[in-house]
Amino acid sequence: MIDLRSDTLTRPTPAMRAAIAAAEVGDDVYGEDPTVAALERRTAELLGKEAALFVPSGTMANQVALRCHTEPGDEILAEAAAHIVHVERGAPAALSGLTIRTIPSAAGVFDADDLRPFVRVPSRYMPAGIFPPTKLVCLENTHNFGGGTVWSVETMAAVARLAHEHGIKVHLDGARLWNAAVASGRREAEFAAHADSVSVCFSKGLGAPVGSALAGSAVFIERARRFRGMFGGGMRQAGILAAAALHALDHHRDRLAVDHARARAFAAGLAALSGIGIDPGTVQTNIVIFRVTAMPAAAFVERCWKQGLRMLPAGADKVRAVFHLDLPENAVEEALRIAAAALAAP
Amino acid sequence: MIDLRSDTLTRPTPAMRAAIAAAEVGDDVYGEDPTVAALERRTAELLGKEAALFVPSGTMANQVALRCHTEPGDEILAEAAAHIVHVERGAPAALSGLTIRTIPSAAGVFDADDLRPFVRVPSRYMPAGIFPPTKLVCLENTHNFGGGTVWSVETMAAVARLAHEHGIKVHLDGARLWNAAVASGRREAEFAAHADSVSVCFSKGLGAPVGSALAGSAVFIERARRFRGMFGGGMRQAGILAAAALHALDHHRDRLAVDHARARAFAAGLAALSGIGIDPGTVQTNIVIFRVTAMPAAAFVERCWKQGLRMLPAGADKVRAVFHLDLPENAVEEALRIAAAALAAP
Amino acid sequence: MIDLRSDTLTRPTPAMRAAIAAAEVGDDVYGEDPTVAALERRTAELLGKEAALFVPSGTMANQVALRCHTEPGDEILAEAAAHIVHVERGAPAALSGLTIRTIPSAAGVFDADDLRPFVRVPSRYMPAGIFPPTKLVCLENTHNFGGGTVWSVETMAAVARLAHEHGIKVHLDGARLWNAAVASGRREAEFAAHADSVSVCFSKGLGAPVGSALAGSAVFIERARRFRGMFGGGMRQAGILAAAALHALDHHRDRLAVDHARARAFAAGLAALSGIGIDPGTVQTNIVIFRVTAMPAAAFVERCWKQGLRMLPAGADKVRAVFHLDLPENAVEEALRIAAAALAAP
Amino acid sequence: MIDLRSDTLTRPTPAMRAAIAAAEVGDDVYGEDPTVAALERRTAELLGKEAALFVPSGTMANQVALRCHTEPGDEILAEAAAHIVHVERGAPAALSGLTIRTIPSAAGVFDADDLRPFVRVPSRYMPAGIFPPTKLVCLENTHNFGGGTVWSVETMAAVARLAHEHGIKVHLDGARLWNAAVASGRREAEFAAHADSVSVCFSKGLGAPVGSALAGSAVFIERARRFRGMFGGGMRQAGILAAAALHALDHHRDRLAVDHARARAFAAGLAALSGIGIDPGTVQTNIVIFRVTAMPAAAFVERCWKQGLRMLPAGADKVRAVFHLDLPENAVEEALRIAAAALAAP
Repeated sequence: MIDLRSDTLTRPTPAMRAAIAAAEVGDDVYGEDPTVAALERRTAELLGKEAALFVPSGTMANQVALRCHTEPGDEILAEAAAHIVHVERGAPAALSGLTIRTIPSAAGVFDADDLRPFVRVPSRYMPAGIFPPTKLVCLENTHNFGGGTVWSVETMAAVARLAHEHGIKVHLDGARLWNAAVASGRREAEFAAHADSVSVCFSKGLGAPVGSALAGSAVFIERARRFRGMFGGGMRQAGILAAAALHALDHHRDRLAVDHARARAFAAGLAALSGIGIDPGTVQTNIVIFRVTAMPAAAFVERCWKQGLRMLPAGADKVRAVFHLDLPENAVEEALRIAAAALAAP
Repeated sequence: MIDLRSDTLTRPTPAMRAAIAAAEVGDDVYGEDPTVAALERRTAELLGKEAALFVPSGTMANQVALRCHTEPGDEILAEAAAHIVHVERGAPAALSGLTIRTIPSAAGVFDADDLRPFVRVPSRYMPAGIFPPTKLVCLENTHNFGGGTVWSVETMAAVARLAHEHGIKVHLDGARLWNAAVASGRREAEFAAHADSVSVCFSKGLGAPVGSALAGSAVFIERARRFRGMFGGGMRQAGILAAAALHALDHHRDRLAVDHARARAFAAGLAALSGIGIDPGTVQTNIVIFRVTAMPAAAFVERCWKQGLRMLPAGADKVRAVFHLDLPENAVEEALRIAAAALAAP
Repeated sequence: MIDLRSDTLTRPTPAMRAAIAAAEVGDDVYGEDPTVAALERRTAELLGKEAALFVPSGTMANQVALRCHTEPGDEILAEAAAHIVHVERGAPAALSGLTIRTIPSAAGVFDADDLRPFVRVPSRYMPAGIFPPTKLVCLENTHNFGGGTVWSVETMAAVARLAHEHGIKVHLDGARLWNAAVASGRREAEFAAHADSVSVCFSKGLGAPVGSALAGSAVFIERARRFRGMFGGGMRQAGILAAAALHALDHHRDRLAVDHARARAFAAGLAALSGIGIDPGTVQTNIVIFRVTAMPAAAFVERCWKQGLRMLPAGADKVRAVFHLDLPENAVEEALRIAAAALAAP
Repeated sequence: MIDLRSDTLTRPTPAMRAAIAAAEVGDDVYGEDPTVAALERRTAELLGKEAALFVPSGTMANQVALRCHTEPGDEILAEAAAHIVHVERGAPAALSGLTIRTIPSAAGVFDADDLRPFVRVPSRYMPAGIFPPTKLVCLENTHNFGGGTVWSVETMAAVARLAHEHGIKVHLDGARLWNAAVASGRREAEFAAHADSVSVCFSKGLGAPVGSALAGSAVFIERARRFRGMFGGGMRQAGILAAAALHALDHHRDRLAVDHARARAFAAGLAALSGIGIDPGTVQTNIVIFRVTAMPAAAFVERCWKQGLRMLPAGADKVRAVFHLDLPENAVEEALRIAAAALAAP
């Protein structure tokens, strides 16, 4: 079975399991888990921030960040297909009372010129305070539903500069920032430098079983600790999970290049198939989104599924495939073989 | 002074003041104000609904409706420039925990085909419940920032049918439904028939000083009463305000046609001016939105203001003018004279 | 009919109706209603605060204040029978995410020693931030369900001093502060001096049909304006209501002494009846709460109701009567006559 | 070092670490982690419920339950020193908009007669809906800050019967229900039978590193899954944690009797010390709360801490000690020796 549904599906390797079993732990709610502390220090360093906080999920990392930066009634900006808009269960509004105004883009990336019209400039003729205050712009790098696209450091910088000029803070949803760094040859901290807070995930391409982190200033993380507790994210001997994340940081970051190469190879193979529409040049990291022209995407996904290739529909005519470390050597070849067969079948 | 900023600026007429002064009142929190009760019955009848509730503002009418139909974490749909999205202070998220997904449109009106792609159809391959449940679509008729545009009964019906097929309720923000009815020659109830709840305002074109109403089923309005109280909208001898609204329903509905004619005349006059861009055929009710090509909209607004003509900027190059009952006889001529002078000045 | 259910039942007098009919008005959402502005200035002066804001209800005045002082997850303190705890529809939690810890008291009034154990002093051995931050204490003067009891200026001062020492702000729910002032011979501003924000009602003992105000620093009121709008409390030509409130401030404050005298006379009369338990010395303002020992309170209320005397049960064995300006001259005598008859009937 | 601060401090045993390392896992957000599924089935069976849901913390288990049973503006009841009131970060109000009315008790346990006066019975003379709807009563068994006290099955049954008669649901915060079962010789399911939902913790006395569960009807748990996701509690290969919990259920439940015996022995030893106030007969499970009469509790705690005995202050004159599996054989003797020395020191 070739499971390309998501890089969240990765199971821990034997070496990672050994690290988990040997983890030194304490009660992290009391601030006494040494492995969690080590992971938080390590993450903060990698992102060039003062402090970091371990949390059980990427959703919680993002939601704690939104809560810290805002109060109910505030407004935030995000790309129209952003993860926080569609698949975090409506949490920005439910947990933090936030309205999200969305910025359309071609593939998940917008630039400062795209952002500019979304900065509210109230007229002095209008009732004071008529618009909700815009407090934050949330960037997602790489952009999941945009197809794993990378925001360059320069684009992030320009967007952040405009935002900051208008008193708007910047949060980076860096669930797959590791992929952006590997793909662009820039350090994670170079991207993070333009954001006031950054979330990263250890349980996607890095392959740890559970956990994400939020990074920012020391004061910000102190405040984040409060809301992590409020959302139910305080865990006791979480070093069990943090040990896996540390192992992943040590051993699974560079190898993301393998996933990227496989994604490109898969895209190139797909491009050669009749009934599929894709420009392989658009594949930047480990995610491939392609159009199915021969049949509805759902039908194609179902045919592949029955032959042992799992992917997810991404709209009526699109399919998403994600490459990751928990795949067999011949994953690309097998996936292409099954896709071709699915298209060829009567 | 010609004040075209908004139809909310209307002050009560002498006859309306007399009705106010003579209002029979009681404590409406105890359900004992006869004038409020009469207004609620009258409003419900006009809208073809079982019951109605008097509230202090259009924002509260809409927000109580949203709260009644949903729970935090739910998602609603609205046109991209809708009143609830931009100028109700972020209340849908802050008070009800709602995410608004917005549907773009040319002038505030979308049809069933525009709505269809926004209906979430989760794949069975995705994690169950990954998307927030879409509970409501909010229509705005006439559409304020769309330029007072009218949703036809037929368009409302088609959109509502699609929504209801997917278990999505329909709320009609009918702050200016009176204008839509007069402009299209249809009764308010014909529009309201396609909505599960309807809000209307007495303090816009109808000229009452304060107040709006929410209408729906008896069960819905019972629930609405709870949230009106929670939002601080329970008023005591509110018959003072309801008497003005009843007077407005009796005397100020038909005359909206005058406002519409003036708006058209103003638009026609503007179209003849160099430095203004407008197609007078797009003016359907009492709101005129036009482009200023000769200078920034803010500069044009400021020049007119100094000469006694008040309008609001509606974006960098657009201006909004609203016609209403509290204007002098020669409002159109004067407004055009001042606008022409503002464009001509060096 | 003698209606002692509440002082909210008062209907406007002819002189007040005349003031309403003659009110100069404008659009208050644009800050252009001169009568609202005058009422806000007048209220701020009476309370010794920089600014005030007119709102449609006492609930909204309190809820806007709570929202301004806090963020969700914070904790506030209030007397156990406080109005905000029981009859504001759960709004402190629903609108502002606040937990209320309640302080028990004999008759609605606690002192600094009663407050002290409720100030959280976290141990350094406990996890940091384990307790919710206590941000506000809410005092209610006079205290409605405590029986119209007055917090003396000195008690307020002592409680406020302790609160402020611990960084806890003070909000005064002064719905009936006018009664406290008249009863104690102190100015409203003397009480208000110890609070960071104060709400007052014009529609209770003062007899205006609708409206309350919130007062505080200029910065606080600026922030309050935002949340008034969010809660749906922005009203257009609200001068119609503000004119009545100004009339009430001019003509109905001193006469509260009449209500207080009547309440005392009623209590003295009740004390002489067998089957009633009350110490007339506890009646401080216009509210009388007494025990019914002869039958269930609900039965007594029902008997009186049928004879034309309306009061509310206030628990299984208690009844509340409230004196106000909209009562006939012989209200006390008639009420006592009916009460006696209700007790005497078989 | 003897660490009696909490039973949350327990670190995994070697056997538990082996179970963790060998856990079969999948992506639980897709519902594909077999170990999580096994734990949920096992927990549901132990509690006699249709279904259960694994979550990262006891706070999340309780908060998801509260969210499922209610909507913002509702009211819930809880014992005055309940965990949800004081140390869940204000989450009931912040996440679910709930007001908590608290019921005082001697040691964390109230009975049906104590509950009765808190059931709101509105008079028909009052405005309809004036009180917030009371939707839930939350019981805590054993009761942490009450001193590990056990609610008997019979008391739970009587309280639940009264609640259900008034349409009030029952949630059982069973973080230490395992202790209640062992102490009283009743099965967990006998307690849970009287509750509509039950939370249990694996990371307290049972000694698992991380995790709790929420149990209830299948429909309830389906709804809970939504809010777990919204709060950020969706975890990927959570079988790593569930394996530890399953191991704990198999090997650490019966041994809670050892903790209880040690707690009793410690209490008996303390009772013999001058300067300590405790009735050893009140110690029912693994928690000992005792008074320090010789000095402030904080001073006593500090002295003990320096000698290697860690306990937490529980008020100005009280100290809490908790027994658990991660203590040396001679924990009771050593703790008593250090406590005696702390009292004796000058």
